[in-house]
Amino acid sequence: MTVYFEDLSVGEKLSFGAYEVTEDEVLAFAEQYDPQWFHTEPERAREQSPLGGLAASGWHTASMTMRLLVDHHFADAASYGAIGVDELRWPNPTFPGETLSVTVEVIEKTPSESKPDRGVVRTDLTTANADGEPKLTMQPIVLYARRNPGSAEEREE
Amino acid sequence: MTVYFEDLSVGEKLSFGAYEVTEDEVLAFAEQYDPQWFHTEPERAREQSPLGGLAASGWHTASMTMRLLVDHHFADAASYGAIGVDELRWPNPTFPGETLSVTVEVIEKTPSESKPDRGVVRTDLTTANADGEPKLTMQPIVLYARRNPGSAEEREE
Repeated sequence: MTVYFEDLSVGEKLSFGAYEVTEDEVLAFAEQYDPQWFHTEPERAREQSPLGGLAASGWHTASMTMRLLVDHHFADAASYGAIGVDELRWPNPTFPGETLSVTVEVIEKTPSESKPDRGVVRTDLTTANADGEPKLTMQPIVLYARRNPGSAEEREE
Repeated sequence: MTVYFEDLSVGEKLSFGAYEVTEDEVLAFAEQYDPQWFHTEPERAREQSPLGGLAASGWHTASMTMRLLVDHHFADAASYGAIGVDELRWPNPTFPGETLSVTVEVIEKTPSESKPDRGVVRTDLTTANADGEPKLTMQPIVLYARRNPGSAEEREE
């Protein structure tokens, strides 16, 4: 079933996904986009990194989060994409061998005043490992299509 | 010369980089991290995408921005990494064939009270194409080491 603006409720919580983080992928991403030694040199990172070992780039953690969102949510959602993201944080490093999952809570819904065919949904998102340790938190702001654009009933929401 | 906390001034502006966006790279990133048709299907995107053609994933634009930051700034900076990012926005889509550069303005410096060896620097960052059209804006919050940890003079800053 396709998810429209009307199908999301404030307070609703969605949890999904299992992304296995591998050392090969951590290295490949970092070599291309974030070539700092604590992301690209396994031995040096194990011995010297204040992060406690080879860690994924924060942008890699964000990208793996996006893959989980696409596979488990946006593939079946009538979305116009994200306006942006507020309060992106990396409370703990992501390590190879961990498995990431995502929890999203709807915190605000605003029907668009200028465009009656869509609405804005703000969520609290957390990406965590299997022990529940948070790796990334953010507030995505996403545009969804409305199933019934601009009906009187929905304008009153 | 290594850039320390003391070397950055509020109001200072840095501009750098030239990252050429290729269709192959847009497709490779999107297939792995953001497999939505407007990022992965060139012909369909050209004909149907409201973005006006095949566009890079927003997380890809962020990752290319990180590469420019590493190559032109963090490689020579005494940084402890980013705490996070506020107000991440994608005002326009990024297209293959464009060349991205980054402008960073220092907007706030706060010496750490608990750890005299470091300070927090907040910046306004814009990633734009060669015509100056903004593709990504955000406020990174980054920890830098202090050259002279906790000296009396610097505590007064």
